[in-house]
Amino acid sequence: MSVTIGALSVSLSAFLENKNYSKIVVLADTNTRKHCYPLLKNLLPTHRLITISAGETHKNIRTCEQIWNKMTRLKLDRHALLLNLGGGVIGDMGGFCAATYKRGIDFVQIPTTLLSQVDASVGGKLGIDFQGFKNHLGVFTMPKKVLIDSTFLATLPYVELRSGFAEVVKHCLIADAHKWEDIRQRELSEQDWEALIAHSVAVKSEIVAQDPTEKGLRKILNFGHTLGHAVETYFLDNPKLKLLHGEAIAAGMVMETYLAYRRKMVSLQTLEQVEEFIFSVYGKVALKEVHAGVIIKLAQQDKKNQNGQLRFSLLSGVGSCAYDVTVGIAEIKSAIRYYSGE
Amino acid sequence: MSVTIGALSVSLSAFLENKNYSKIVVLADTNTRKHCYPLLKNLLPTHRLITISAGETHKNIRTCEQIWNKMTRLKLDRHALLLNLGGGVIGDMGGFCAATYKRGIDFVQIPTTLLSQVDASVGGKLGIDFQGFKNHLGVFTMPKKVLIDSTFLATLPYVELRSGFAEVVKHCLIADAHKWEDIRQRELSEQDWEALIAHSVAVKSEIVAQDPTEKGLRKILNFGHTLGHAVETYFLDNPKLKLLHGEAIAAGMVMETYLAYRRKMVSLQTLEQVEEFIFSVYGKVALKEVHAGVIIKLAQQDKKNQNGQLRFSLLSGVGSCAYDVTVGIAEIKSAIRYYSGE
Repeated sequence: MSVTIGALSVSLSAFLENKNYSKIVVLADTNTRKHCYPLLKNLLPTHRLITISAGETHKNIRTCEQIWNKMTRLKLDRHALLLNLGGGVIGDMGGFCAATYKRGIDFVQIPTTLLSQVDASVGGKLGIDFQGFKNHLGVFTMPKKVLIDSTFLATLPYVELRSGFAEVVKHCLIADAHKWEDIRQRELSEQDWEALIAHSVAVKSEIVAQDPTEKGLRKILNFGHTLGHAVETYFLDNPKLKLLHGEAIAAGMVMETYLAYRRKMVSLQTLEQVEEFIFSVYGKVALKEVHAGVIIKLAQQDKKNQNGQLRFSLLSGVGSCAYDVTVGIAEIKSAIRYYSGE
Repeated sequence: MSVTIGALSVSLSAFLENKNYSKIVVLADTNTRKHCYPLLKNLLPTHRLITISAGETHKNIRTCEQIWNKMTRLKLDRHALLLNLGGGVIGDMGGFCAATYKRGIDFVQIPTTLLSQVDASVGGKLGIDFQGFKNHLGVFTMPKKVLIDSTFLATLPYVELRSGFAEVVKHCLIADAHKWEDIRQRELSEQDWEALIAHSVAVKSEIVAQDPTEKGLRKILNFGHTLGHAVETYFLDNPKLKLLHGEAIAAGMVMETYLAYRRKMVSLQTLEQVEEFIFSVYGKVALKEVHAGVIIKLAQQDKKNQNGQLRFSLLSGVGSCAYDVTVGIAEIKSAIRYYSGE
């Protein structure tokens, strides 16, 4: 897979040059159709547009059926191209639909959120939610290309930018102590986004190249996600408590750094640094020890577990991370208690 | 991918040896649960069984949801194994569900029909029907193993055996003139099934190994299928006219051999040989020139077409086959007319 960071006006025509797609289709949601498609429209030759409802709640098999339906009605053959214009939902679900339509057509990711630019668009993980479990159905298929244009970030609300930043923080904590020092001493408004995107893409690409299908090393990218995903799913089921992915992952990183501290894998100083920085940027999620049972049950559905045991990716210092660390129920409860300050 | 032909009592334990699956699940349909599962049950350690309704009409996204549902409720993790016990529907759909559950778990094909033993189980093509189009959604994923035991053939009705035989005929016609001479001089009851299975698997495996994702050579396996699939789909939509896959492919092979003859790619003698043999085994499908419009429309949805043009794999003599041969509407009409004898 190859990623190009820069103006879409240059990168898109470079990609399409010498290609001979039978049809080009853009997949957008109601938000990106309004805010991002106008920036893309005139850069493309004749094409068609498929628009779906925006939001994670639509990342399901029903919406896939809508997309496959449209693809069929547009008579797309195996030599068609799908351009996924949007955040993680569009990239994951559009990629899944492309990878399964007629056993796979080409697709290109054009991530429009910070989160999808630094994370979802890189690495070929595609999928949809199923019965309340995140990315429960999916495949590993690399896009033909990822085109990242930071211009789109201007279309993002602050909370969305902050959500994506959680994955930037993660990439620093698991792989680059120096960069961690750099970002933790700046306000969000002072960050150099273009440089951070390039850094995150480089960190993630290198890990994915070494282990494309997550048999080993790639699992370190799950740091913060075992509990973070469970928290995200828990709040997804409770519509009153709206929580963005990065906000949940930020909470997960605090709890999982605590787990690493309990195991003496990181120092108290590191735990306090991580905690202080994350609380200053994200505040604290309304999570109490009383939720522990549900959170643990949700975490047990995590794809990297084996034989029902919970396996974590835990920091082994700033800038490095261990994986397949089995953690017990009591430890998880204590991490939730620690986080909540109860 | 590797295929083992022989007694399941030997091949299955050989496969499971040294494996450490967290759970083993058998997928069967109502027929194979009754007729085949008893032969498998005692060869397996502790396992669970998922049973679905039998038949091509159930090869759809709804049934996939049932299977994914069961897999979720059985708490299968990424280290579970799915054994697909049945014909092409079970193999294609079970394989697709396994390949997409948590982005892919191991699966093994245990084909129980001649058709799936000589064709569907080999080559990693997985998928389901969608909106009347055959295998419209799917992926290419190789099973961990294909275990073929010809004992299961004893459970098959005659018409099912005859249906599977069409793919054996195809493998001879596209790749082995000598074997074609052999089979065409025997009655169906005189064929050596174990030897024919081994021959078909060898022919198909060699082609697939050279071109796993059907960019080129693999397309020759579609001989008889461009019109055959269209005929099959047409009859699927008309429940009164029940037609098995092989019966449709047999008709497709006659029509497509006629197309090759018109192009002077095969001799009149070859056309007559193919026609005579196929009519003697399969009789003639109730297809008239008046159906040409619908058949052509269905054929245009074939996955190997490009830009709406119809592309065929046509014999270039007995034992060899050309692919990506563009054929016009008028020629197809004449082939249907020729077949129907109108």
